[in-house]
Amino acid sequence: MNWWHDLPADEPFGLDNLPYGVAEFPDGPRVVVRIADHALDIARLAEQAGMESGMVWESGSLNAFLDQGPEAWAAARAWLQDTLRGTERADCVAPHLHPLAGVAMRLPIEVADYVDFYASEHHATNVGRMFRPDSEPLTPNWKHLPIGYHGRSGTIVASGTEIVRPSGQRKPPESTAPVFGPSVRLDIEAELGFVVGGGTRLGQPVAMADAWQHIFGVVILNDWSARDIQAWEYVPLGPFLGKSFATSIGAWVTPMAALSEAKVPLPGQDPAPLRYLAGEAAYGLDIHYEVDWNGTIVSRPEYREMYWSPAQMVAHMTVNGATLRSGDIFGSGTISGPAKETRGCFLELTWSGQEPVTLADASTRTFLEDGDTITLRASAPGPNGTVIGLAECVGTIAPAR
Amino acid sequence: MNWWHDLPADEPFGLDNLPYGVAEFPDGPRVVVRIADHALDIARLAEQAGMESGMVWESGSLNAFLDQGPEAWAAARAWLQDTLRGTERADCVAPHLHPLAGVAMRLPIEVADYVDFYASEHHATNVGRMFRPDSEPLTPNWKHLPIGYHGRSGTIVASGTEIVRPSGQRKPPESTAPVFGPSVRLDIEAELGFVVGGGTRLGQPVAMADAWQHIFGVVILNDWSARDIQAWEYVPLGPFLGKSFATSIGAWVTPMAALSEAKVPLPGQDPAPLRYLAGEAAYGLDIHYEVDWNGTIVSRPEYREMYWSPAQMVAHMTVNGATLRSGDIFGSGTISGPAKETRGCFLELTWSGQEPVTLADASTRTFLEDGDTITLRASAPGPNGTVIGLAECVGTIAPAR
Repeated sequence: MNWWHDLPADEPFGLDNLPYGVAEFPDGPRVVVRIADHALDIARLAEQAGMESGMVWESGSLNAFLDQGPEAWAAARAWLQDTLRGTERADCVAPHLHPLAGVAMRLPIEVADYVDFYASEHHATNVGRMFRPDSEPLTPNWKHLPIGYHGRSGTIVASGTEIVRPSGQRKPPESTAPVFGPSVRLDIEAELGFVVGGGTRLGQPVAMADAWQHIFGVVILNDWSARDIQAWEYVPLGPFLGKSFATSIGAWVTPMAALSEAKVPLPGQDPAPLRYLAGEAAYGLDIHYEVDWNGTIVSRPEYREMYWSPAQMVAHMTVNGATLRSGDIFGSGTISGPAKETRGCFLELTWSGQEPVTLADASTRTFLEDGDTITLRASAPGPNGTVIGLAECVGTIAPAR
Repeated sequence: MNWWHDLPADEPFGLDNLPYGVAEFPDGPRVVVRIADHALDIARLAEQAGMESGMVWESGSLNAFLDQGPEAWAAARAWLQDTLRGTERADCVAPHLHPLAGVAMRLPIEVADYVDFYASEHHATNVGRMFRPDSEPLTPNWKHLPIGYHGRSGTIVASGTEIVRPSGQRKPPESTAPVFGPSVRLDIEAELGFVVGGGTRLGQPVAMADAWQHIFGVVILNDWSARDIQAWEYVPLGPFLGKSFATSIGAWVTPMAALSEAKVPLPGQDPAPLRYLAGEAAYGLDIHYEVDWNGTIVSRPEYREMYWSPAQMVAHMTVNGATLRSGDIFGSGTISGPAKETRGCFLELTWSGQEPVTLADASTRTFLEDGDTITLRASAPGPNGTVIGLAECVGTIAPAR
């Protein structure tokens, strides 16, 4: 018996999880798998086992592995679980385990296209009330299609990357012209990011029945948002600089295969979606989320409250013939539930700054201050009473330059 | 004297132009330069000259060359012009010239992020009138910042790629619910695409004075647009599937160095832009454009009519600290002038389909029909009365699948 044979059921990174990341080793970056507080150098383990298919992990990103598709992902997972659960190969495994404390992780994906959806009815309703007080909070299209837009791929960064407060134009309500300066309403959006594998051909939509085959795994995603910049710029073509300065993701991608016990029905869709968005694949995920602001948990969103399924997002995103590429990431949109303490951004949680939150040190907050640290955590039920953790996503705000 | 020493002044691809592309050779793709109707294999020419810096052209994209920055671009251009203008090295040049008819060109850029701006006041005003008839046509922010949004990098395709008519949701005016099917209002947007070279660091804006240093060159760009899909989806987060099915660009990137004679003042900005958007770099380009629909020229937009300068787009896009990457492309937005015959999209040209255009074969059109071919062409003044051509951008509509 070795330590990884005997992990407690509440270990979030046990053998039923096995998320993938990319570690910087002295001789170059390689794909690794997390087991508790260790990174397993699977490229070297595969090499030692004479397994040629492990060559794909000799890489600075997961993209080549993503490109191989669901059969290869399943085969790799089966080999890993078999290797790790058995005891006869323990001597082979042990030399390739590195304590996380000594390993630098990098952004695990070379991001192709980044799309961000808007799939929480509660979030969209709350934001609509605040941004467009004279209109119906939900736009007429909202329940007919998962609204999304493209974000900036080049500013997706790994958990831990410092977030410099963005500057830009904003128009104070009392002013007739915009002013320039650091954002004074810097916010988070607590989301999940789905990592796409397996490219498609231009002009060929992905059907609902095939959609999950293109979702390799999931990360925690923080869609940092400068609300004052966004509010001034976003009509008519959508968010741009209010979002494009940075988007953080967790450093470990939990494969969808680890979330088989987390499938739940959607809360319900009325009206029924058009046929290309319908089918058994339209399910949700039972992922519990928490938002930690300088050590105080200020919100506990539940992903099962989301209106649209990730499969519907894939089917919608490609129905016009747009391709998918390995390395695409799509965000769920802010995860907000019906209760105040389940709202996934501070715009909603503080109701546009009118209702400050109090942190454990008795200080109060509306939007982010310089030096604040946000830690997003999430977990899901695993098989046999185990827990599947998603790697945390952390960011600290640095002053504007 | 060889033929390339004696090109007429109206040759659009003479020695003052020298646009870069990527050709598929039997032994792999390489960067080439266009001279009249020939492609010059500059990787092999440099190799023969013992010039190590030419290694960067031994590549399937321009990205490595883009990454080298403006000094390397200038040095390469000087070497090429020197080599081509002299007669003593003609014997070295000739074997590396390949007639274009026998060369397959590929998408010249591995596209990083794609941003599309909205920089024509005439276009924005016309579209505002049609899409939001109950509001002021220009949104309050329009003259304060160059409005832009991110598009889908993965569906940027090279000139000549067939464009499959996209399907999606649209809501007919008489219907309470959306219907699904092929777009019935398929349109073009005649734009320029600017190709970025030289990455920047996260959190470090590009000042106006440095903006042109990051613009390597320019291509013709057709931002195909399904107006019915766009109109239904775009509130509140902007265009998505109405645009993401395909964006075509010309196969040859004309370097900005070839457009030194095309610099013109902007038409005038009132109110004066905020300081980060101001400076001598805020100039426009005198590029003449034509839109050919099945052989009939239906519009002749002038790029000099654009309100915002490409340098202002770079400064704005990065002012929040967002990075640039080599291979980023940003579009100008539809180029429309004040006169009807200078409008750069069919939504405007036919006033939302109410004023059909008549083609040379006496047929009429409002939006694109299956089998239609659109050819976009552009040219600018070069030194000493020469003409600088931008490579045409062609696309033919295939029926929905």
